Amino acid sequence: MDKSKEGYPVEAFADRLAEAVRRTAAPVVVGLDPRLEGLPPSLTPKDPSPAAATLAVERFCREVIDVVARHVPAVKPQAAFFEQWGPAGMQALAHVIAYAQQKGLLVIVDGKRNDIGSTAAAYADGWLGPGGASPWGADALTVNPYLGDDAVRPFIQTAQARQAGLFVLVKTSNPGSRQFQDLVAEGRPLYEHVGRWVESWAEQTLASCGYGLVGAVVGATHPTQLAELRTLMVHTWFLVPGYGAQGGGARDVAGAFDDRGLGAVIVSARAILFAYQSSPYRERFGPDRWQEAVAAATCDMIAQLRAETPAGRLTLP
Amino acid sequence: MDKSKEGYPVEAFADRLAEAVRRTAAPVVVGLDPRLEGLPPSLTPKDPSPAAATLAVERFCREVIDVVARHVPAVKPQAAFFEQWGPAGMQALAHVIAYAQQKGLLVIVDGKRNDIGSTAAAYADGWLGPGGASPWGADALTVNPYLGDDAVRPFIQTAQARQAGLFVLVKTSNPGSRQFQDLVAEGRPLYEHVGRWVESWAEQTLASCGYGLVGAVVGATHPTQLAELRTLMVHTWFLVPGYGAQGGGARDVAGAFDDRGLGAVIVSARAILFAYQSSPYRERFGPDRWQEAVAAATCDMIAQLRAETPAGRLTLP
Repeated sequence: MDKSKEGYPVEAFADRLAEAVRRTAAPVVVGLDPRLEGLPPSLTPKDPSPAAATLAVERFCREVIDVVARHVPAVKPQAAFFEQWGPAGMQALAHVIAYAQQKGLLVIVDGKRNDIGSTAAAYADGWLGPGGASPWGADALTVNPYLGDDAVRPFIQTAQARQAGLFVLVKTSNPGSRQFQDLVAEGRPLYEHVGRWVESWAEQTLASCGYGLVGAVVGATHPTQLAELRTLMVHTWFLVPGYGAQGGGARDVAGAFDDRGLGAVIVSARAILFAYQSSPYRERFGPDRWQEAVAAATCDMIAQLRAETPAGRLTLP
Repeated sequence: MDKSKEGYPVEAFADRLAEAVRRTAAPVVVGLDPRLEGLPPSLTPKDPSPAAATLAVERFCREVIDVVARHVPAVKPQAAFFEQWGPAGMQALAHVIAYAQQKGLLVIVDGKRNDIGSTAAAYADGWLGPGGASPWGADALTVNPYLGDDAVRPFIQTAQARQAGLFVLVKTSNPGSRQFQDLVAEGRPLYEHVGRWVESWAEQTLASCGYGLVGAVVGATHPTQLAELRTLMVHTWFLVPGYGAQGGGARDVAGAFDDRGLGAVIVSARAILFAYQSSPYRERFGPDRWQEAVAAATCDMIAQLRAETPAGRLTLP
């Protein structure tokens, strides 16, 4: 990209996120995982071609965004569910990112990208920076740490230059995360090695809110580790997947927050997107009123977090 | 994708790779890393827009393919250098994959993708399977192991169904790979934990050539580990980056091969693509005859591997 382009945000990503969480009093990120088989019947394509699937996926995401934009600070499109449909799906992803930002949402692209140095720089150049700063225009991107420091540094440099953010995988929400992430080396598990290193980067890139531009992905399905990592990683925004459909609840994520109710944003995807399929929303709304089910599930999740975590303090005057 | 589509190859990926290596007597994969700043002057766009960059990148890759298709079994497009240009870049990647396959090359997409179970399945569905089996149509894809077994299994299932292949990152070529990959847990480094697990999958998915569909990425910059891993991972195809520009030479990769000269394919990207910029090719060809420099650098690398590694046995009758 032409580095002379304007359009970079004025504020650091960490501060934009803190401001949006405070404004909505909702530390919630809606995961945009548009699985074709979950789409409401009214949006399911008759023709199963990639072109038809792509149109349906994009329309579904736009209609979800229309509902959630007033309630939450950010959405997290999952790159895989767009990439699945080939180049047309990637075009739809670009449209969805831009549409969410038009509606005032921050966009965290869940791509789990990584590569060695100069290749990582190309990913960072493509993804990071809203407002015309990059072709995809993401406010933040998820990044995989396996390749080590010199593979993440280019992402940090670009994020710094463009006021964008990163979330590095530390302890993922899936059961298989234990296989490598829990291996103990030099007296601590691998995820803690990664976590301490992320924290050192967060500390070096602090914004006014007290958090840095490098955040961490830590699953809601590991409440103990989540609370332990919070105490170790005091300058690190946590992006917490695994809430809802994967089994994590409000009490499981309470330890992810700081005393102000900041420091963590909790992701829910399926339990919000496809709420019309499950109790109690199925009975109240059904497939035709699926958008109302999305709204109700989002508001219920926010209410639970306010009731059972330090996020309740966000609503105080 | 519609699973009823035809077009899956008849042979297992491991066997297609073995056959192509034998046919060319060249265990070489040309890495398609079309860095804009490296393109020969005749292809460098005057206008630095993403659209112009994308056209230049695609044309460069096609012209490289025209040269190397007669010499090597496979190319490895690096997704980052297409993603960098946004949706148009991804369209170019799809064109480049299809063009390489038309020219008889196997295509290993270097995307280093991964995510938890059902999301990994979407990546696999999108990328894996040539001949119309998937929208991107890759013969194989590189995959990151950090998330653990349940995140790689969906890739294996799809690869099996579509006669595609995988290469899981084990020990990467960058200096920073030591940070996490060399951490010692339970008496062995993390990369060896990953390597043994990859080998167990390779053993469960054996093809006629004696190798399985799950391969490993092991850098040419670590000759000792490469040879050690070869003895531990006897059913695993190795994809070996780091040759040439990153410092690995023919003797460094000798230990990656089996006695037949199979078992490893060595990647070179910059040193081939941009050979016109470096001695001795700069002096012999210069920027106008950059394709001749590509051909010469490819043939020189093949000759070195035949002279100094077990790949020499591939040329015996």
